[in-house]
Parts: sequence; structure tokens; C-alpha cells
Amino acid sequence: MSQQLTREILVELESLRLIDPHTHINPMAAASKTLADIMGYHYYTELAHSAGLAKSRIEEPGLDPKEKVSRLVPWLATIENTAQYSWLLEMSREFFDFQDDQITEANWESLYDNSLKKMSEDNWEQQVLEKSGLDQVYLTNDFDDPLTGFDTRFYVPCLRTDDLVFHLSKTVVRERLKKSTDSSPTNAEELKSALAKLFVHFTANNARACAISLPPSFAPEPVDLATADPIVGKVFQGKDLDSKEQTVLSQFVFWTLTEYCAEFKLPFDLMIGVNRRVFEAGVFQGQDLYDKRVSLIQYKTLLNAFPQVTFPISVLSETSNQELVSYAWIFPNVVTNGHWWYSNIPVYIENDTRGRLQAVPKTKQIGYYSDMYKLEFALPKFAMYRRILAKVLAEDFVVRRNWNVEKTVELGKLILRGNVETIFGEAS
Amino acid sequence: MSQQLTREILVELESLRLIDPHTHINPMAAASKTLADIMGYHYYTELAHSAGLAKSRIEEPGLDPKEKVSRLVPWLATIENTAQYSWLLEMSREFFDFQDDQITEANWESLYDNSLKKMSEDNWEQQVLEKSGLDQVYLTNDFDDPLTGFDTRFYVPCLRTDDLVFHLSKTVVRERLKKSTDSSPTNAEELKSALAKLFVHFTANNARACAISLPPSFAPEPVDLATADPIVGKVFQGKDLDSKEQTVLSQFVFWTLTEYCAEFKLPFDLMIGVNRRVFEAGVFQGQDLYDKRVSLIQYKTLLNAFPQVTFPISVLSETSNQELVSYAWIFPNVVTNGHWWYSNIPVYIENDTRGRLQAVPKTKQIGYYSDMYKLEFALPKFAMYRRILAKVLAEDFVVRRNWNVEKTVELGKLILRGNVETIFGEAS
Amino acid sequence: MSQQLTREILVELESLRLIDPHTHINPMAAASKTLADIMGYHYYTELAHSAGLAKSRIEEPGLDPKEKVSRLVPWLATIENTAQYSWLLEMSREFFDFQDDQITEANWESLYDNSLKKMSEDNWEQQVLEKSGLDQVYLTNDFDDPLTGFDTRFYVPCLRTDDLVFHLSKTVVRERLKKSTDSSPTNAEELKSALAKLFVHFTANNARACAISLPPSFAPEPVDLATADPIVGKVFQGKDLDSKEQTVLSQFVFWTLTEYCAEFKLPFDLMIGVNRRVFEAGVFQGQDLYDKRVSLIQYKTLLNAFPQVTFPISVLSETSNQELVSYAWIFPNVVTNGHWWYSNIPVYIENDTRGRLQAVPKTKQIGYYSDMYKLEFALPKFAMYRRILAKVLAEDFVVRRNWNVEKTVELGKLILRGNVETIFGEAS
Repeated sequence: MSQQLTREILVELESLRLIDPHTHINPMAAASKTLADIMGYHYYTELAHSAGLAKSRIEEPGLDPKEKVSRLVPWLATIENTAQYSWLLEMSREFFDFQDDQITEANWESLYDNSLKKMSEDNWEQQVLEKSGLDQVYLTNDFDDPLTGFDTRFYVPCLRTDDLVFHLSKTVVRERLKKSTDSSPTNAEELKSALAKLFVHFTANNARACAISLPPSFAPEPVDLATADPIVGKVFQGKDLDSKEQTVLSQFVFWTLTEYCAEFKLPFDLMIGVNRRVFEAGVFQGQDLYDKRVSLIQYKTLLNAFPQVTFPISVLSETSNQELVSYAWIFPNVVTNGHWWYSNIPVYIENDTRGRLQAVPKTKQIGYYSDMYKLEFALPKFAMYRRILAKVLAEDFVVRRNWNVEKTVELGKLILRGNVETIFGEAS
Repeated sequence: MSQQLTREILVELESLRLIDPHTHINPMAAASKTLADIMGYHYYTELAHSAGLAKSRIEEPGLDPKEKVSRLVPWLATIENTAQYSWLLEMSREFFDFQDDQITEANWESLYDNSLKKMSEDNWEQQVLEKSGLDQVYLTNDFDDPLTGFDTRFYVPCLRTDDLVFHLSKTVVRERLKKSTDSSPTNAEELKSALAKLFVHFTANNARACAISLPPSFAPEPVDLATADPIVGKVFQGKDLDSKEQTVLSQFVFWTLTEYCAEFKLPFDLMIGVNRRVFEAGVFQGQDLYDKRVSLIQYKTLLNAFPQVTFPISVLSETSNQELVSYAWIFPNVVTNGHWWYSNIPVYIENDTRGRLQAVPKTKQIGYYSDMYKLEFALPKFAMYRRILAKVLAEDFVVRRNWNVEKTVELGKLILRGNVETIFGEAS
Repeated sequence: MSQQLTREILVELESLRLIDPHTHINPMAAASKTLADIMGYHYYTELAHSAGLAKSRIEEPGLDPKEKVSRLVPWLATIENTAQYSWLLEMSREFFDFQDDQITEANWESLYDNSLKKMSEDNWEQQVLEKSGLDQVYLTNDFDDPLTGFDTRFYVPCLRTDDLVFHLSKTVVRERLKKSTDSSPTNAEELKSALAKLFVHFTANNARACAISLPPSFAPEPVDLATADPIVGKVFQGKDLDSKEQTVLSQFVFWTLTEYCAEFKLPFDLMIGVNRRVFEAGVFQGQDLYDKRVSLIQYKTLLNAFPQVTFPISVLSETSNQELVSYAWIFPNVVTNGHWWYSNIPVYIENDTRGRLQAVPKTKQIGYYSDMYKLEFALPKFAMYRRILAKVLAEDFVVRRNWNVEKTVELGKLILRGNVETIFGEAS
């Protein structure tokens, strides 16, 4: 019975057009140009590398796209069990008329050629958007992105702040900041002024959120100007910081950004728990992992200090999901946000979705974002999520709580899209 | 098939009368007087606050009960998905003849008036107890509770010790201790004597357990009199303790209480993992959260030192459940106890129940307690638990292990009630 | 539908003969001689002890096997709900023609006598192996095991290194090392040479892996000879080490062993997370527990330093499974390995299996090992795992991903056996 109900709910959810509230799309090159853009996504390169393909074969300089795909294909058999592979298969079928059950050394080349033909069509980007039912795609922009050359009402800017919080000690980052803000900070106050300019620039260009990914060790605290001053001075003189100074600088910048989120009325997407470059010899974007020993209690001071800022929070480890549920249940400014990266796997999505639907106000849950680098990925990722959401809704609400299907579908639509509009602002 | 089996088992479990081994009932005002007593429960106020209702609207001094409910009702739509809301709906239907699918601005007033009529009946408390099938309700009494004015065979006293362990540095707590024990401790030995009087008083009044909630950072250790002496002296002179002294004092008092649990043969309910006042601007009782980075290894010394004391242990985070299962599997004095607070949500109850039933001796599991502040809550909370328990029993024992229904129901009854009697003492 | 599919897949998996890649079998006495060898397994003694049976009744010196069983039997009713008990029942039925639903004070004696008759047959060991479908059984040998007197092609040696890494400060361990390597190390270099001899000896005798169990606090780091020298000197002079020196010594030995794993091409089984002797008054082998606050990030340096060594990793806490999945997804040298001890319970096996099958390359997953001390345990333990694996395969691959049964069964066989052969070397 619940399988029939799941299908009934799923059909309704599939009729809903989507807003994707967190991606890494480059709006100047949103869609893929070749299959290598899809299979070059780190999910495939890192899994193939993990299964045995040498990094040098994947990242050889000047590698031809078709050659790259031909090197990855033999390894697909070793990862065909993964959810990530299922996305590849679904993309191949939905976008490129692929008919087989698996991508093999025998059939990949026709898939490659077919997909190349499709992707070469003038309106490929629009075809993908239409087939995927996307009304808006949120970006994750570098702080010095000019935000020009694309329609910011469709490709919605979002200010990514990792570099500012964690990498000001790199010359290149400071230079980018100086250039983009036409300033040359020498103390904490001047750094704050420079950062303010970024918010002016981004909000003038329809930005809807500030975003950052945070290591498990990070714990935001306010830092007063007097404390920050010498450290800001030092780093902008190009001097090295010790690790304690680096922490204080990160806290100062982070806190300042949050103050501007309050002032400029931007939600601050916190993506909590990633350790960068854990596997140093890994492929591009396939080097990061995590330490599950992180707690939202580290954000206590922040959450109390900024009741007026909405924090859509993503956690990397599923062992953090119950904390996220509990903090969103108690703190008005905490919103649950999607299923991130290592937790973006059916078994964790299903369990985490249940917890959120059972204990967090329905208006405070952003169901899903694709985190995609290329447009084609929204379709299979949202499809995966929708199937799980439909199953949870059927089992937990229609069967267990005797909700009717109509009301249950309404809840699903709120989670899937409605809350994105109310939390980040409606599609314009 | 398993759904039919679940129903068959559920009917049997529903026929069982209950003992509720942990509540916060005030035996002088056990049942609700108005719907505000129910909807004023922190689960609703904190969720409404989390969804957007201002604290000042909820906690306005002198607020009329009906007005309070009228302010909460519009927010119920935002939390209708939650398990907590499902309890409210079930109470409304079972106790107040509510017929609709949801409580809305259109129908709440008749619900309020109907419920007021019911609650105003002379024997309302007895009606609730009868409909809920409750044979006994355990309390959580302040250490200076006179324990008079109610039937301690029905409302069973339990010595709550949070204030003693963590708040002796507050003048009001020391004064309450002095008054209730007719003593004025100046050193560790005298403090021990004062505490002994509390155990004499409580056990003379049918107390069946000592109880405490503990922060994630707490780790019990024995403290000798010589070490404790100056700290006890200092605190009873009203001087401030530094954080290290406070820890030692807490450990000394906690260890002393456990010694008395051994001497007076009381189980010691440990409720592990809560951080108090995390959300400082939250509503009453809606401020506490937790840090999942806690381990039962912190209780190693205690569990080894007191083999003669039974410790029914509740954990706040579901990430602690497997540890609880493992420690109860190995330590004779560890008993699994209910599904506490942020883990009292179907998805966690189901998973945690499976783990316990699959690996802990069946005689060492206390299935459930309501944790309620008002009597009406036992019905929907136990109902929720029973449905989950029936499902787990049907799937894991009848289907997977080929147990017959009769034997399976016996296991369910043991978990639901039998163990409460053997662990805390039979209903008298 | 999925139940029918599960049965269909299960039948196929049951037809597969097995290699058990991690056991504690003594090849000179592999099978049980009496039922006391089975019921004396720590799973039953520790659960009976936890339920109330005194340790002195279980471990009385000189206790007759039949008397021992007679003392345990009355407690079986208290643990009949556990997975561990279900293994006992399945062994009794499969090996000893036991027909009843439970083992009671009324029927245990005939079970004892029947089993004694069976076990006394000349070829009992062969009967068990045949009925269990075992092609190979991996051992866990002390480093000074002569590895003679048994067929190492069937009972495959594996070098257990706990004593070397954590107990060199014990005189008896150093004496065993000196004797088995015919050496008397006085410095780090000489200790390395002695350890090399162990690898020569083990690999000459068909050893297929090095193995170790590790406490939650351990974090491998390289230690240079100059740092190690004085500590090695000190410990081999019989002097006490402080805890910092002990840590450095453990790190030095562990790192050296890993270097030899690289040189001798042995996988290194890491079993991460056990705290020894937590319950000091527990029964034999029933004293160990854990601290879930452990992370694979502690192994970052190691995993980066030894890309050429395969690390089949087992984690004790299910809260570590997602980290294991993620690290195996990224690191080519990390393989997921079985379901260990406190996580070897259906609810955790099922969840953990889903996570692994959904996100780790299929070639990097060793499904199961029995961890058994006596041969009879492989049958019920593998049977339990196979049932769960079949259920997950049916639900997640046939139903959700539309795989056909044949392909799904192939995946199951790879997880269950194929990967054992490729990772440790084929059955010879």
C-alpha cells in the first residue's frame, strides 16, 4: 500500500518546478560541453581513483575530453553500485537517449558522440533547464566576482566567504580583496569597511545569501577591534600569523560577515564540518574529508548573538543531523538545509529527512540543493531526493499519521520549493 | 503481513495497564485545568517560538489561559508535521471529543470550551488516569519536598538531585538544604550527614529512585573528604568557587549520593547529556540543548565502583544509543531507560528500540516513560511508543526470528511494564 | 514483492562457499569439544553475567563443562531476545538436531548429550566446515606462533600485533619477542630488525595479513630512530615508561609494522576503537567497551604515507560507519571490513551495509567475517549477515534501482567472497 502511495505522491512532487538554492554553477558556462564535463565531476574521478585509476591518468595536462572519458569508463563497473553512478546513468538516459543498463567499454563511445551532438546545440543550456524544471539556480560566487554577464534573476548570486575567513594570509586573496574593494586595509576597522563594500556589491546584484564551509574545529566568537587590529595589520603587511592569531583573524572576519548579513538582511548558509586536503594525493576536489567530532554547541554564541540572521545549516556528517534537528527545533534562526556531500546518499537522506519532518517546524526546512558544478546534475540529484521524500511522506504521514494525500503533497512541496522562496526571497 | 502482525501485537500491548516511571507531575495539580496547561507545555511554546511567535507574546505576565491558547493556535499549522503536534491532536480527540483533522483558528475555541468543561469536572484527574490506564506515576521531587498531601503509593516519589550536585553555590539551594535537613554543614562530613537525611526522608516516603540530569562534560570521580573539606567550607560560607572547585564539589556530592543509593537501595536514574540554557532567549524550558560529544566511558569509574547500584540510563543524543546498548550488554548495573526528549521522536525511538531489543538482556530494558508535566500527556506519548514497539516486535521477532505472537507480546509487556516493577519495585 | 526478491537472492547467496577472513580459531582445536565451548563464548557468559549470573559461578576453577552449561542455561531466558542467542539456537538446530523453540532447564541436558555425541565423532571439525561451506579460515596468530602443525593453506595465518604495539613494556612480551626472533634489541634499529624477522616468518608461512585492534585515543605518527632509540633502550632494560614515552613507543612500533606491510605486501587490518578492561570485574573477554569519540582523521598521516598498503578497516561504533564509508570512497587504500563486535547486530549491519553499498566502490568492501573462537559460530553469523545482505540488495538494487536479480546476486557474491580473494589473495 505504501508503495502505491509513494508513487502517487511522487507524481505530484515531480510536477513541481524547482529552485536550486545552492550550486557551484559558472553562469558563463553552466551546461556541459562534453561528457568529460560530467564524468570529470569529482564524484566520478575520485571514485575511479579510489577504485584504482591513477591520478596521473585522470589529470594529465592537456588531456582530450574524449580520451579522458575513455580512461574513466573501464572503472565505472567498479562503482556501478554507488548512488553517484546512478546519477550518471539517469543523466545519460534522460538527456542523451542512452538505452542500456550500464555504461561500458562497448557502448560508451556512442554515448559520448550522442551527448556531444546534443550539447553542441545552440540552446543546450535552455534544454537542460527546461527538462530539469528549474526556475532559478543559486550560485556560489567568489567575493570578487563582478557579477556581470548573466541574468542574476535566474542565476542568483551568493557571496562565498571561505577565502575571506580562512585565507587572508594568502597574498593572492588579499590582492583580490584590495582590488575588488578598491581599498588597502591596515587595521580591523578598514578591513570591516572593505568587507562592507562586498555586501553592497552583492546585494546590489540580487545576492540572496552569504555562504561558507567550515572545518569541524571552528567555533565563532566575537573579537573586538583592539584585539583584531594588530593581527589585521600584520597579515596585511604580509607577515606570517601563528595558529592562534589565524584563529582570531578567522573569528573576527566571520563575525564581521555575520554583522553584515544582519545589516544587509542576507541569510548566512553555514556548511559545517569539512576538513580540507585530508588526502593530499587525491584528485581535484577529491581530497576533503571530515572529523565527525563536531557539535553545533560550537555555534551557541553566534546563534544567540544574531537572532535577526537566518542560518540555513548543512552538516557534513549524518551523526550531526539530530543536533541540527534539535537546534532548528529550538532556535528560531536555525533552518535545516539539504543533504550535503558525504550525507547526500539515500540511506542518510532518508533517515535525516524523517528526523527533520518529525521534529522541525515545516516552514524551517530547505529540502534539497544539488551542489552541482554543471547543470545536468540537478535532474538526477533532485530526482533521487524526491523519491526518498515521497517514500518518507507516504510512510510517515499518510500511513502512520493518517494524513490525506493532498495535505501530504502540500507538505512535500513546501519542503521542496516553498521554503526556498520564503527563506531566500521569491523568484523574481 | 507484518502490518497485520503489528496490529495484532498492538492490540495486546494496548490492553496492558501502565506504570510511568519518570514524570514531572505535581501531584497536587496533576491534571490540566485549561488547554493552556497542555499547549503551554514547552514542546508547543518552543516550537511556536522557533517558527516565529515572539516569546513576549507567549510569556506575557498575567496572560489569560484562553488568550494564550489563541496566540499559539495560528502557529500550529507550522508545526503540524511534528510528532509533538500529533500528541496534541491525539489528546484533543481522546479526551475532548475533538473530531477535526487539525486545530485551526476556526475550530480552536470550541475545543477550548469543550476541554474546559471536561477539565472542570470533579473527577477529571481520575478520568485521565483511567483512560490512560495508569497504575502508578513516578514523580521527580525537589530534595526539600515534604512529600505530604498525596498518595505516595500512586504518585511515587523520586529524589531529584540536580540542585545538590550542580547548584550548591546558589544561596537559595543551600538555604533549602539547611532548612530541609535542619543542619548547617561546614565541612564535607557534615554535608554527607545532611544528604543522608534526605535519603531517610525520601525512602520513608516510598521513594523508588534517585534521579539527575547531567551535562555532557560531567565525569564522576570519587573525592576524598580532605579534598572536599575546604571546598564545602568555602561554598557554605557563601564564597565563590572557581570552575575547578565547582567540578570537585559536584563530583563529591554526586559520589556521596551514589553511596547513599547503595546504602538505601535506590536505583539512580542518570539522564546524560543536556547543556542547560544554550538558547538564552528561549521560552521557559525551551533553552536547553546538547553536545553529542559525550561518552559513557566518562562513567567507567562510577559503574565499576557501585556494582550494587542499578543505573537506569537515559541518553539525550541518539548517537549515544549504541554505547548505551553496549554498556548495558556488559555492565550488570546498567539498564536502558526510555527515549529522552530530543530522542523521543519516532525515527530515533524505532532505531534505538531495535538496537536494545537485539543486544541487551530483556530484563534490563525500561521501555518508556512520559517525562510529562501534566497527566494528559501519558496517553499520546505511550501510544506513540507502543505503536513503534509493536512494529519492531512484529518485524524483528515474528517475521525475522519466527517467534510466535504470544511470546512476542510477552516480551513487549516486559519492556513496557514488567521491568519497571522489578527494577523499581512492584506497584504496592 | 521485496520479500520474495529477498528470498530469491538469499538462495543464491547461500549457494556460495565462504572464506572467513578474520577469526580467532585455534587450528589445533578448531571445533568445539562440548557445548561449554560454545556457551562459554564470551557473548553468552557476559550477557548472562550482565543479566545477573555471578562471575564466580561462571569462572569457578576446574568447573566441569556440563556443570558450566547447567549454570548458564537458566539465564538464557533473559537473553533470548538477543541476536547472540539466536546464533546459539541456530547452531543447536543445524548441528545438533535440536527441535525446540528455546533452550530451557527442561531440555538442555538432551541437547548437551546429543551435541557431545556429535562433537566426539572423529571428523567433527570436517563436518562443521562442510556444513558451513567454509573454504578457508583466517586466523589471528600471536607474533611468536610457530605456525606449524596445521595446514596454512586452509587455516591462513595472520600476524596479530597488539602485543608488539601496546605491551612491549611487559616483560613476558619482550621475552616472547626475544625468543621468537632470536635477538635481544637494545635500540630502535635492532627492534626493527627483530620485527622484520616476524614478517619473514609469517609470510614464509602463507600469512595474508597483519592485524591490530586499536584504542580510540590512538593516532599513528612516524617516529624517527633518534627519538625512538632511548625509549626502546629503556623498555628493553625493563625500566618503566611514562605515558608519553609509551605513546611514542607504540607509534614507533606501529609505523614500523606498516613499513613491513608495505615491504612484505601484506594488507594491514585495522580494528579501530576498543577500550580494554573498562569493566574490570567482567567475565573473561567481557570487559572491553569503547568511546565513540574517535575519528578516522586520526589516521590521516598514516593513510597518506602508505598508499601501497591496503588497510581493511573495521570500526567498533556504528557512529563511525559513515566516516569509514567516506574514507573508503576517497582513499584508494581504505577498504571497509565486516561488522565488528558491538556493531555486529542486525540493526547496525543493515544500516552500515546500505551506506557502504551506496557509496563505496564495490571492489573495496569485505562484507563479513565471523570473529569466531570456535568453528561452529561461522554458520549462524554468516547466515545472519547473508539474510541482511539479501534484504538490502533486494530493496536498494532490485526495487529502487531496477537491477535484475542476476546482476544483484553477482554484487552480493563479490561482497561476500570475491573481494576477500582479491584483497587478501586467492584461495590456494
